[in-house]
Amino acid sequence: MTTCLTPAQLADRHRDTLDTALETIAGRGYWSPYPEHPKAYGDGATVLNSLDAEQGLAAFNAVRDSRFELDQPGTTGWVGAEHSPYGFALGVSYPKADIDQLLPAMAAGVPAWRDAGPEVRALVCLEILARINAHTMEFAHAVMHTSGQAFMMAMQAGGPHAQDRGLEAVAYAYAEQTRLPRNAAWSKPQGKRGPIELTKEFTAVPRGVSLLVGCNTFPTWNGFPGLFASLAAGNPVLVKPHPHAVLPLAIAVRFAREVLHAAGFSRDLVTLVAEEDGGTVAADLARRPEVRIIDYTGSTAFGDWLETHAPQAQVYTEKAGVNTVVIDSTDNYKGMIANLAFSLSLYSGQMCTTPQNLLVPRHGIATDDGEKTYDQVVSDLAAAVEHLLADDSRAVSILGAIVSPAVRARVQTAPEIGDVALRSRSIRHPEFPDATVRTPVLVKLDAAKPEHEAAYRAECFGPVSFAVAVDSTAEGLALLRSTIAEQGAMTVGGYTTSEEVERGLVDVCLEECAQLSLNLTGGVYVNQTSAFSDLHGSGGNPAANAALVDAAFVADRFRMVEVRRQA
Amino acid sequence: MTTCLTPAQLADRHRDTLDTALETIAGRGYWSPYPEHPKAYGDGATVLNSLDAEQGLAAFNAVRDSRFELDQPGTTGWVGAEHSPYGFALGVSYPKADIDQLLPAMAAGVPAWRDAGPEVRALVCLEILARINAHTMEFAHAVMHTSGQAFMMAMQAGGPHAQDRGLEAVAYAYAEQTRLPRNAAWSKPQGKRGPIELTKEFTAVPRGVSLLVGCNTFPTWNGFPGLFASLAAGNPVLVKPHPHAVLPLAIAVRFAREVLHAAGFSRDLVTLVAEEDGGTVAADLARRPEVRIIDYTGSTAFGDWLETHAPQAQVYTEKAGVNTVVIDSTDNYKGMIANLAFSLSLYSGQMCTTPQNLLVPRHGIATDDGEKTYDQVVSDLAAAVEHLLADDSRAVSILGAIVSPAVRARVQTAPEIGDVALRSRSIRHPEFPDATVRTPVLVKLDAAKPEHEAAYRAECFGPVSFAVAVDSTAEGLALLRSTIAEQGAMTVGGYTTSEEVERGLVDVCLEECAQLSLNLTGGVYVNQTSAFSDLHGSGGNPAANAALVDAAFVADRFRMVEVRRQA
Repeated sequence: MTTCLTPAQLADRHRDTLDTALETIAGRGYWSPYPEHPKAYGDGATVLNSLDAEQGLAAFNAVRDSRFELDQPGTTGWVGAEHSPYGFALGVSYPKADIDQLLPAMAAGVPAWRDAGPEVRALVCLEILARINAHTMEFAHAVMHTSGQAFMMAMQAGGPHAQDRGLEAVAYAYAEQTRLPRNAAWSKPQGKRGPIELTKEFTAVPRGVSLLVGCNTFPTWNGFPGLFASLAAGNPVLVKPHPHAVLPLAIAVRFAREVLHAAGFSRDLVTLVAEEDGGTVAADLARRPEVRIIDYTGSTAFGDWLETHAPQAQVYTEKAGVNTVVIDSTDNYKGMIANLAFSLSLYSGQMCTTPQNLLVPRHGIATDDGEKTYDQVVSDLAAAVEHLLADDSRAVSILGAIVSPAVRARVQTAPEIGDVALRSRSIRHPEFPDATVRTPVLVKLDAAKPEHEAAYRAECFGPVSFAVAVDSTAEGLALLRSTIAEQGAMTVGGYTTSEEVERGLVDVCLEECAQLSLNLTGGVYVNQTSAFSDLHGSGGNPAANAALVDAAFVADRFRMVEVRRQA
Repeated sequence: MTTCLTPAQLADRHRDTLDTALETIAGRGYWSPYPEHPKAYGDGATVLNSLDAEQGLAAFNAVRDSRFELDQPGTTGWVGAEHSPYGFALGVSYPKADIDQLLPAMAAGVPAWRDAGPEVRALVCLEILARINAHTMEFAHAVMHTSGQAFMMAMQAGGPHAQDRGLEAVAYAYAEQTRLPRNAAWSKPQGKRGPIELTKEFTAVPRGVSLLVGCNTFPTWNGFPGLFASLAAGNPVLVKPHPHAVLPLAIAVRFAREVLHAAGFSRDLVTLVAEEDGGTVAADLARRPEVRIIDYTGSTAFGDWLETHAPQAQVYTEKAGVNTVVIDSTDNYKGMIANLAFSLSLYSGQMCTTPQNLLVPRHGIATDDGEKTYDQVVSDLAAAVEHLLADDSRAVSILGAIVSPAVRARVQTAPEIGDVALRSRSIRHPEFPDATVRTPVLVKLDAAKPEHEAAYRAECFGPVSFAVAVDSTAEGLALLRSTIAEQGAMTVGGYTTSEEVERGLVDVCLEECAQLSLNLTGGVYVNQTSAFSDLHGSGGNPAANAALVDAAFVADRFRMVEVRRQA
């Protein structure tokens, strides 16, 4: 086998990027090595050898209606039934794997990968990310036509932002594995006698096979952190995508296999196991003794099941939650309304970070534009969403398409829950007439009405939000607290000009362990986080048992073996 | 309340120690701020205001036959039935707690403790450790008369070495909690428009109540890491000692409460829950929703139970294992035999790190003293143990006393397992005639005999070791591998002059994740580890799911909450 990528070449290409990533996760400023502007991609553009949007589409079209070859051992057939939320079948089929052949093949590559050490592993991961980055436009189409995200969002969130999260995970994994020196000399004084001397050698060793159970809405953004953290820590990674969003992760697996091979390692350190709806591969794999790490994004039911039924594995989950915004007062009423309108509209509210419950005091709020009643706040927000989405072609570029019939059904039945402040409308996509596109629905609920409680106490995933009238901000804070404690939350938002209320919001979030965004009125939204700076989730409330990305996310993906010898 | 210890005073006393600990865990050299020599303790000695051995005994005697007052809320009665392995009842009773009063009291102190931040918390922990250190001689007697360790070992392992492990945990907790800045400015360029700017504030928040389930043999050494890691990470700690070893942890709890109070925090951040044999407090507490962290050292059965039945908690366990020494060859036969003889004898083999299975090729081994047959190796080892323990008063200073009737029974029935190479003898302790003192028993087994397998495939805790004849070193390595994989191991030892065998030993330990000591022939023993330098356990095989102490041991004892605000 010809080794095409030497450690020196890899270091030359990527060591600076790794170092900057390490600095940035410590300082938490803004940085990304992967441009988010579409113009950065294409012939002669910033990112070398990258595809432009048209080439990305061509690459996407080239894999449609074909077999996605990965040359994996134990391939026993072909499987795949992805259907774009924009209204067509992808027609791609993926290798079906005999797991009893695949797992030993994955294990065979481990010793060399372990012996390569943390730096080479990190650099190989960065080369994989670099090739993924160059194909951002291909990922854009793949993510768009599996998740239903609009093109620009699929390009950014499914491309550079996901790559950022992957790199962040690599940086953390490298930092954790290099906290102990490779070799140490130990000399213990013994008074008049000479000292006792030992040499010590520390090696990061992998835990075992890492299983990534992907999600439908953000296959790369939610998948890359676990994939790269585990791989950088020396573990082989088995990628089990959501049956409706296989392609983005399959492309990533292909690049990983290509780079591992070029760098002289086994391709089978990263493999794909695809399945169609109704399969039980994730549950079957999760209980295999070889599987020692599981990363999962999806329903609370299966997440909880994994946390209790796979005791042999470290299990990192992101599950359902109920995100709340407490609206107490503002010195920028227009900015607040516009910011919230965008938050509710982006990707049709199909983000785990989209606000669901907007808590507004029934007596109204103080603003720079005078007192606003509960009804005014709600109708102003409804009008802002309508205005934002008034133009159909602009609307589809923000909304994207509805990912599943279940989400569509929730939009349909939302009016039964309470008074509708903003009716959802159906939009015909100018380019994809069969896409299901819906604007958000905003329902008025009242915390004083027991019959409303079931609705705002459960996640209603999709473009359905509740404007919940509360007696006071204090009642709102109490409701926020119990909602985080019982349902969990990926995000919390707050608007207030009162120091006391701000302190109350911060206290609730510190005590119930949730990430808080205060008084966002500009171009940052509560549903967005930035890699290297923001944490995604806290890992400390029921919505997720891990945060993206911190040391706890990587520290237990490897163990440290010490060999000590008499000096 | 008068605050007697200000943050400035604490920093003045302890910041240097913390910094040196942080340096040492990164460099892994030898260091300890807590002297292990008895002469360092007492009036005018190195450690200020410390007790000497006589004062330590007086302090121990002062608590005997009395109530150990802790002034805890919810005290409903008194409990305690400790009996020294040296043959007398301690007569100490401890507060019985109404957990429904105790847990809310513990929670009440959390916000101020959280708001104090990682540095103050670390410094308070160091003050607790300093007071514990000054009372090392009191701990020595308390540990001796609960664990059965000989006085010198109880003084060192139960004193400074345990304090080292506690400090190491504090240093790791501090390092992990300060990896993110307290505040960060984030500025994202937007081309021609001005940048988007946010300020970000990161706060380490505790998980919840941390439950320490103590063990009988090393109450402080195994207990301090979890106790101090959790406390330093902001969590209140509920200490549930082993019913037979309450006193050492009760004294530690008393110092913790005293220092917390003096520094202006709630005493109830550290509380004791004692019980007698047959109690179910640990299992009851482990399932309380308030309990979010559990540290446990003890049987595999209860450790496995905790790992699967307390899904709401992070569970760190050290359980049973089978430790192996592979004997292939040596260039220092005498040193090897002497080193092993001491390892088997120290604390009557009642260490989780004591070798149990000595694998020796049946055709013999090459040494600097010529070829040695299996029988010669075994009889030389037996003779060395006999020689080491020939003098009764020296013997008891190494052996200590047998901790429990179960261990005594194992010594008694060991001769039924196979041919006895070294018979255990009973020694009358010169000072404590009622102590149960036993020398080790060494039994010859044969890997070729299926009827022997059950014995060497299970932990036989106590002074019982097996010299297992194997066909070859290669067979020994295979047996080592399967033993680690199936039974787990806290330690592995190896003796070889062959680079190939050494590579084989290292490979097995890297692949099965076990800590390896090679060719120890001097004053370091396979059963001993040194804080700040050696890892205790690997956390990657069935003997333990955590190592003492690494980043993984502390990284998930807190979570990081981010508050971001528009700048």
